[in-house]
Amino acid sequence: MSSGSTFGNNFRVTTFGESHGKALGCVIDGCPAGLALTEEDLIPYMSRRKPGQSKFTTARNEADAPEILSGVFEGVTTGTPIAILIKNNDQRSKDYSDIAELYRPGHADYTFDKKFGIRDYRGGGRSSGRETAARVAAGAVAAKLLDSLDIKIHAYTSSVGPISVISYDPSETNDLFMPDHEAYEKASEYIEKLMSEGNSAGGVIECVIKGVTAGLGDPVFDKLDARLAYAVMSIGAVKGFEIGSGFDSALSTGLVNNDQFISDGAGNISKKTNHSGGVLGGISDGSDIVFRCAVKPTASISVPQRTVDKAGNEKEILIKGRHDPVIVPRAVVVVEAMAALTIADAVLSRPNDRLEYIHRALKST
Amino acid sequence: MSSGSTFGNNFRVTTFGESHGKALGCVIDGCPAGLALTEEDLIPYMSRRKPGQSKFTTARNEADAPEILSGVFEGVTTGTPIAILIKNNDQRSKDYSDIAELYRPGHADYTFDKKFGIRDYRGGGRSSGRETAARVAAGAVAAKLLDSLDIKIHAYTSSVGPISVISYDPSETNDLFMPDHEAYEKASEYIEKLMSEGNSAGGVIECVIKGVTAGLGDPVFDKLDARLAYAVMSIGAVKGFEIGSGFDSALSTGLVNNDQFISDGAGNISKKTNHSGGVLGGISDGSDIVFRCAVKPTASISVPQRTVDKAGNEKEILIKGRHDPVIVPRAVVVVEAMAALTIADAVLSRPNDRLEYIHRALKST
Amino acid sequence: MSSGSTFGNNFRVTTFGESHGKALGCVIDGCPAGLALTEEDLIPYMSRRKPGQSKFTTARNEADAPEILSGVFEGVTTGTPIAILIKNNDQRSKDYSDIAELYRPGHADYTFDKKFGIRDYRGGGRSSGRETAARVAAGAVAAKLLDSLDIKIHAYTSSVGPISVISYDPSETNDLFMPDHEAYEKASEYIEKLMSEGNSAGGVIECVIKGVTAGLGDPVFDKLDARLAYAVMSIGAVKGFEIGSGFDSALSTGLVNNDQFISDGAGNISKKTNHSGGVLGGISDGSDIVFRCAVKPTASISVPQRTVDKAGNEKEILIKGRHDPVIVPRAVVVVEAMAALTIADAVLSRPNDRLEYIHRALKST
Amino acid sequence: MSSGSTFGNNFRVTTFGESHGKALGCVIDGCPAGLALTEEDLIPYMSRRKPGQSKFTTARNEADAPEILSGVFEGVTTGTPIAILIKNNDQRSKDYSDIAELYRPGHADYTFDKKFGIRDYRGGGRSSGRETAARVAAGAVAAKLLDSLDIKIHAYTSSVGPISVISYDPSETNDLFMPDHEAYEKASEYIEKLMSEGNSAGGVIECVIKGVTAGLGDPVFDKLDARLAYAVMSIGAVKGFEIGSGFDSALSTGLVNNDQFISDGAGNISKKTNHSGGVLGGISDGSDIVFRCAVKPTASISVPQRTVDKAGNEKEILIKGRHDPVIVPRAVVVVEAMAALTIADAVLSRPNDRLEYIHRALKST
Repeated sequence: MSSGSTFGNNFRVTTFGESHGKALGCVIDGCPAGLALTEEDLIPYMSRRKPGQSKFTTARNEADAPEILSGVFEGVTTGTPIAILIKNNDQRSKDYSDIAELYRPGHADYTFDKKFGIRDYRGGGRSSGRETAARVAAGAVAAKLLDSLDIKIHAYTSSVGPISVISYDPSETNDLFMPDHEAYEKASEYIEKLMSEGNSAGGVIECVIKGVTAGLGDPVFDKLDARLAYAVMSIGAVKGFEIGSGFDSALSTGLVNNDQFISDGAGNISKKTNHSGGVLGGISDGSDIVFRCAVKPTASISVPQRTVDKAGNEKEILIKGRHDPVIVPRAVVVVEAMAALTIADAVLSRPNDRLEYIHRALKST
Repeated sequence: MSSGSTFGNNFRVTTFGESHGKALGCVIDGCPAGLALTEEDLIPYMSRRKPGQSKFTTARNEADAPEILSGVFEGVTTGTPIAILIKNNDQRSKDYSDIAELYRPGHADYTFDKKFGIRDYRGGGRSSGRETAARVAAGAVAAKLLDSLDIKIHAYTSSVGPISVISYDPSETNDLFMPDHEAYEKASEYIEKLMSEGNSAGGVIECVIKGVTAGLGDPVFDKLDARLAYAVMSIGAVKGFEIGSGFDSALSTGLVNNDQFISDGAGNISKKTNHSGGVLGGISDGSDIVFRCAVKPTASISVPQRTVDKAGNEKEILIKGRHDPVIVPRAVVVVEAMAALTIADAVLSRPNDRLEYIHRALKST
Repeated sequence: MSSGSTFGNNFRVTTFGESHGKALGCVIDGCPAGLALTEEDLIPYMSRRKPGQSKFTTARNEADAPEILSGVFEGVTTGTPIAILIKNNDQRSKDYSDIAELYRPGHADYTFDKKFGIRDYRGGGRSSGRETAARVAAGAVAAKLLDSLDIKIHAYTSSVGPISVISYDPSETNDLFMPDHEAYEKASEYIEKLMSEGNSAGGVIECVIKGVTAGLGDPVFDKLDARLAYAVMSIGAVKGFEIGSGFDSALSTGLVNNDQFISDGAGNISKKTNHSGGVLGGISDGSDIVFRCAVKPTASISVPQRTVDKAGNEKEILIKGRHDPVIVPRAVVVVEAMAALTIADAVLSRPNDRLEYIHRALKST
Repeated sequence: MSSGSTFGNNFRVTTFGESHGKALGCVIDGCPAGLALTEEDLIPYMSRRKPGQSKFTTARNEADAPEILSGVFEGVTTGTPIAILIKNNDQRSKDYSDIAELYRPGHADYTFDKKFGIRDYRGGGRSSGRETAARVAAGAVAAKLLDSLDIKIHAYTSSVGPISVISYDPSETNDLFMPDHEAYEKASEYIEKLMSEGNSAGGVIECVIKGVTAGLGDPVFDKLDARLAYAVMSIGAVKGFEIGSGFDSALSTGLVNNDQFISDGAGNISKKTNHSGGVLGGISDGSDIVFRCAVKPTASISVPQRTVDKAGNEKEILIKGRHDPVIVPRAVVVVEAMAALTIADAVLSRPNDRLEYIHRALKST
């Protein structure tokens, strides 16, 4: 598993590609036959992470047009691998001598060199945030699959630096994907101030998954929340993950934190509260699945930093070009994508939970 | 993957067993030949999670004596699967009618029923915390393997409810595994008060991994921190995970959060700070790996709670028996075990990183 | 994958244990909940491979009583791992100095030493045929699962040395599992003559799988016949595998070898012949699945053989004890077990073939 | 695992693509960093399976020019996924009404429909032999890796129909890859006669792997020969596999079939004969690894055949276009590719066999 580029056991995605190589892409093996799918389904997802869309993102101009190479026939998946290609148009030759020789603080230049002994340094190579384009394409396919089961995933920026969403306003749309207009304005100011100093901001993304009935996920190592943590923590800048009451649960007591089961009188069971975040014992409990992740401040900043070169000499580095002053808004859709891949993977193992489900699935084959 | 009971790709552990079944255990496939190993190596780990050891743990009296059934010959691993058996001695027949029919709040009774349609309800069955005994046995083997590579893993209680360790005192030993005597005393009082009310506490565990050189971990989905999150979040009561500056990084700025690379003049590179928590781009950077996880308050409390039964009728439940008023101290060694399994698994893929490593490994075969 | 002791992706079996260690066994993860299962279900399978049952098998007296440790509650599988333990009763201490120092021809003593540098030499350790006891226990569970889907697997001895079954007689029962009385008598004579010379025989096992509807198996690497070959070739003494017309197809022509599709007038499609052996393009075609495997003559023979010792000195070895003069009859049930594991594994991925199957499986969850 | 398009645990290849879709290709994850690799390395392999090269292959004109999209930087692998793209140039729109509605005998049309309910019927879609182009590209990378370890793989046609190679002549080159000029001439005649009748031939391919030292392969399910059988049987037209004395071993006796170990006096151990085919107990024994596989006659023949349509009506089908009258010669390189993938995968797990290998591999990291 030299590069760990496959995710999932049933709905399995393998990604490839470097920031300034010929192309990025993914292969999905395990998507069931019979799902309507076209490149149009991918566009809205790709667009949300595309650079050059607001004052808070880099100016890199990528078409990010995903091309489906296989696995779809006459607009429907055939059950064979779905390969998606995203060509790199922005391969201008640049002067990479700095990044080739110096280790950028907060980046993976040093660790890649220590691991592999060689590294495609152009634009960060495989460790570039651009790698997530392939995840988003795959996640869009997973989301389409989940949609057919009435499962909907929605992520948004819940805080930027110290500014948090206070009240969730579903009608609010802005380039920070922050669903609270007042918080958005404060966050914009906060980021702009940091930008003017060549500095960068972090934040928190919250994700809500609706429509997952009770019973999804595996009870031991492959707990649904463990798989979600795995998926989301694999996004480059994410440094923390919590589900439901999360770190706050450490401060709570059993009496408060336990969610009471209730009934609607017709035998439908639900919970009075949702401190669990929709997962009990690693298995969905029928409430919304709610998790949050912490995104660190962009490592690429526009002020000189001290570092070392490959030979171990201390040097100063000034990272060129324009970079996102905050990664959070573009990471929102990446979080959604990783959640979709995780849930789709879990859904596909669900028929194996009970012999009766298998019999039902195969009754007429 | 109906029950997701295997962890790891190279150092692979499969666990089995229910709380009140005949036995629990694990099979480790992928442990290299040539590691000195006896049951004595497992005892210290097993002892740390054993119940009945302090006023803060249940009185259940389990010998928890692990028996190695295979894979070890004359005190050395042979490269074949290591099966470890832990018999359940405490199988007293009890009255489980309540737990069979009622869904305990905060427990997985309901979700197991919804997933599988059947559940071994005795003592929580497969979802009991007792399941972690098998993890700890396996983790002890992994820790022995890592020890031969000078990798040491140490976890401890960093907070109980609102009481946090202020200054780390390595000489402090207590039944909460809390390395700060003053904090320990306050935490004890806090727990005792909750116990007197039939209530329970949560807390935070911190884990430090020393001796991992730069270059461990995979750069995309199998990032070292993502794998650690996956491993640790799979422990029943864990609700959050963070590495390095974690959720605080969301409040920081790039200028502060970036760790400066430095050199000792002899070409040895390290970092001036460790906000990264020892992992950059998913690969170890040579600093200590430092992560924390949030443990929710024990779900089993001694006050009556409202809930529903299997038929969907609202009922009151009073959970019998004595339970840990706080899971944190017994979970400390489980966190260590899961970290050891994760790091051991990653170590075994390290020779494949470079062709030269493979050549070196196999040069005389 | 240091010892490759796990088989299957969905119905996953991990085995462990050495010939003269404390116990052998297996853990099955992925068996769906709701299957009626008791130890009684395993006995008939275990009995068929048990030694000491006829003049053609070793006298080793093993009870081979499988004990289910987990995963079954009140006689029904719960969806959690099913651990099965088979204790080794026959652990008489013997003089193993020969086998410890000398490499038996046709055995894995030498290759284990070269791979692992250490080996449990007692009775062959992990490479003993006794390892298959755990496979048979697991295979019995798989067979029970398949039975609920009306899939039946039946293997038998189709030849011993040069003597082949001419006409299949389902009523014939004998200790060679050879369904042709005349062939059985000749084969007995053949084996007895070789026994009298201290020599041994090989043979061929044929396996027929009935009740698999068209559509099982994956089209590329995981073709159903490729998975069957993998499973069956993993049995120690098996040296060849063929499906349908197999090696004879190399001598045939397309005109003869192609199976004509026919219809019963009511739209039910079948094939006029079955040269394919029930698999086309890696996917079951609705005909019986028919394969054969070649079993080499028992490597343990009672005449002195030339060999080398660990130090590389040429020596003579005389293998002590009584051994099966032909492995074929006891391997018959092992072939069935491996076929059952393969088919069960494939069946569990079948609901994922089509979105409509998943919807149908989950419609009421 | 809806389509089973990934092979390998360490050196993992995922293929994609349909015969008449936009492109085929593969992603290799797990190739170590530091291997010199260019597209030139792939060409000789691709050329050997390319159509249109002799009178015995189809006229389809495919450039089959593989394009490396990622994972290679400045001519050296970087340890990240290597994606290889093979565009389909020959996408002429044709009349596929027959193949869309009728099930070709000996093909996977019917089974794909039964499995997935939908099928890209153009040119056979995913079940076309064209799928193997991606395997060959991946196999060429594996072969380059093995070459650095002095492991060489060579396959050739050992028989066509009833005509077998009698004496192996390494200098003989011909378009059947049959290393015996006399056999080649007879085989050509045999095929030409069948061609004139619109019929087709089968044959046998033998593969020899040199340079594998003793100790490669896993001892239980992942035996080296079991993995080779799995790999080779996954090639579309292969119906049988045998290693060493294979099916002939069933006719032999222990005394004859056992290979005597010998020594050169300097402590180097080898075998006097090689009935084992280079694998004992699933682990390489240091002799050449020798296996054979049976290839069925081409299913596409030029004479009318009886079949059924999708609705279950009996019909006549006449398959249009020119097809290989024998698949064997083009399959030779596919067998080599699958062997290379299998051996490379096994090699990468070899450092984990012993703790000392891991220590040696990592000693300076």
